[in-house]
Amino acid sequence: MTRDNNHKILDCTIRDGGLVNNWDFSVKMVQDMYAGLSEAGVEYMEVGYKNSAKLLKGADAGPWRFLNEDFLKEVIKTKTDTKLSALVDIGRVDENDILPREQSFLDMIRVATYIKDVDKALELVDKFHGYGYETSINIMALSHVMENELAEALEEIAKSPVDVVYVVDSYGSMDYSDIDYLVAKFQRLLPEKRLGVHMHNNMQLAFANTLMAARKGVEFLDASVYGMGRAAGNCTTELLLSNLKNPKYDVRPVLDLIERHLVPTREKVEWGYNIPYMIAGALNEHPRAAMALRASQDKDKYVEFYDKLTSPEAMPTNHHSD
Amino acid sequence: MTRDNNHKILDCTIRDGGLVNNWDFSVKMVQDMYAGLSEAGVEYMEVGYKNSAKLLKGADAGPWRFLNEDFLKEVIKTKTDTKLSALVDIGRVDENDILPREQSFLDMIRVATYIKDVDKALELVDKFHGYGYETSINIMALSHVMENELAEALEEIAKSPVDVVYVVDSYGSMDYSDIDYLVAKFQRLLPEKRLGVHMHNNMQLAFANTLMAARKGVEFLDASVYGMGRAAGNCTTELLLSNLKNPKYDVRPVLDLIERHLVPTREKVEWGYNIPYMIAGALNEHPRAAMALRASQDKDKYVEFYDKLTSPEAMPTNHHSD
Repeated sequence: MTRDNNHKILDCTIRDGGLVNNWDFSVKMVQDMYAGLSEAGVEYMEVGYKNSAKLLKGADAGPWRFLNEDFLKEVIKTKTDTKLSALVDIGRVDENDILPREQSFLDMIRVATYIKDVDKALELVDKFHGYGYETSINIMALSHVMENELAEALEEIAKSPVDVVYVVDSYGSMDYSDIDYLVAKFQRLLPEKRLGVHMHNNMQLAFANTLMAARKGVEFLDASVYGMGRAAGNCTTELLLSNLKNPKYDVRPVLDLIERHLVPTREKVEWGYNIPYMIAGALNEHPRAAMALRASQDKDKYVEFYDKLTSPEAMPTNHHSD
Repeated sequence: MTRDNNHKILDCTIRDGGLVNNWDFSVKMVQDMYAGLSEAGVEYMEVGYKNSAKLLKGADAGPWRFLNEDFLKEVIKTKTDTKLSALVDIGRVDENDILPREQSFLDMIRVATYIKDVDKALELVDKFHGYGYETSINIMALSHVMENELAEALEEIAKSPVDVVYVVDSYGSMDYSDIDYLVAKFQRLLPEKRLGVHMHNNMQLAFANTLMAARKGVEFLDASVYGMGRAAGNCTTELLLSNLKNPKYDVRPVLDLIERHLVPTREKVEWGYNIPYMIAGALNEHPRAAMALRASQDKDKYVEFYDKLTSPEAMPTNHHSD
């Protein structure tokens, strides 16, 4: 038995799950989530995006997409040992929205970026670090990044004050050998940074990959309750709590959250492993086409979908990286 | 890229999936399955149990539970490159039902056994081997077997004519470190045997564990289309076909099978990952209690179920091994 005492579970149900239900979570559910995750021993809860409504024009979404500090304090009321984090996207965050950490309920700000914008991400990291936050940089779509580009980016990241650097399997296309390779590379090029992983479940590998990363020394493990997240969803919080060998973890409060909140939510909106997401993952493509299929009448026409994605005339959906 | 040319996918949808729908598969579906799996390049299809109706009193089930050779020939008509296998259980097979291989459509007979009956299993293996069949011995519930017992059994198996020896994760409780350990042990103690794995998906690890075993040199990989199988189900055939690097594999015909047959079947009967099966897997228990829960009104009462299984007064369901 390997004790897993140095891991941190970062539950991103409200943030990533919001991509499924347009952040339509009740205040009661978010309060229950914070209480339940705290009781379960989960170290971080990501309560939403700290993007700016002004920069996302026409955006009409629940409050967890544009976290407001006053609202957050009203909801959370009293902090527990579970820290709070928020994610920002390059170009969608108004830096004037961010308070110094001592005035905020947030402990950590994570910056999601594509490889081409790492410079912009590091500028934000500098600022948030200066405000006193823990910071992370989450490089998305790593499976579409060339080696030389990645090496250059990691070199810059190594020099920055960022605390945690994430390996993100945006397309759910990685298996253990990819995790093996990338974690070793990040460890070599970022010897002084803490690492994290954020996996997707297109090929039923999100939990397996996260477990593998954990055993290789990756500290931050992203997960969501019942796997709630865009498309095939994430590594589940309940599987990590059940399997990591840390006496402080207790899966029971999370089972209660699933029973009371996630099962009813799942009856209204869809996420999780299914065949179109599996196909997208196996082909190392953005889930966009599969999501459109699942929202259509043809949601179970797998062969037609497969033929479309694999035909020589297929739209190069994998050349966009958003 | 590692070429995976030496692997054999053994699709057990009809046999293991029959445990879910009481073998209520139409002849048309089984014919389509054989055609589709053949086209996909799958090496073996397990068409059912070769148990005896006489020895399973009161049994009322579809014909795939008690394979009859005449019926099988009528259904399959012409053999392809895809071999056919059947499973037998100790004490439930009438040896007089088994024809010599040259008179049969079956190529392989697999014997499922618990550790205590390995002697009986080997007696059957001897007989089937004498009839000309390829044979395997599938030791179930390995996670409940003590080291000394296992070592003794493997010693006997090493001396037998059996072709393939399976690592079976009956309770879906194993992760990659268990696979690592057991495969290495089997390879060490059975240097002249070919190995196989049969994994269950209680913790979303069936595919990951099977992939890991494949990379460690395990040759026979059990899977089922859409994961159809008892409780949390199996490693899926479509994930193996999509991921193993063998140019002869083509997932497309299996997507067609899913669309035409498995999706409609799944609307009528339940299998696959869910929370009660996850709990049973994490606790290394037989899925029996979870199956009973899923068949009841309380199917989503996860906390109550968890409390029942973890209370000091819990029925020792894990002391039975059937």
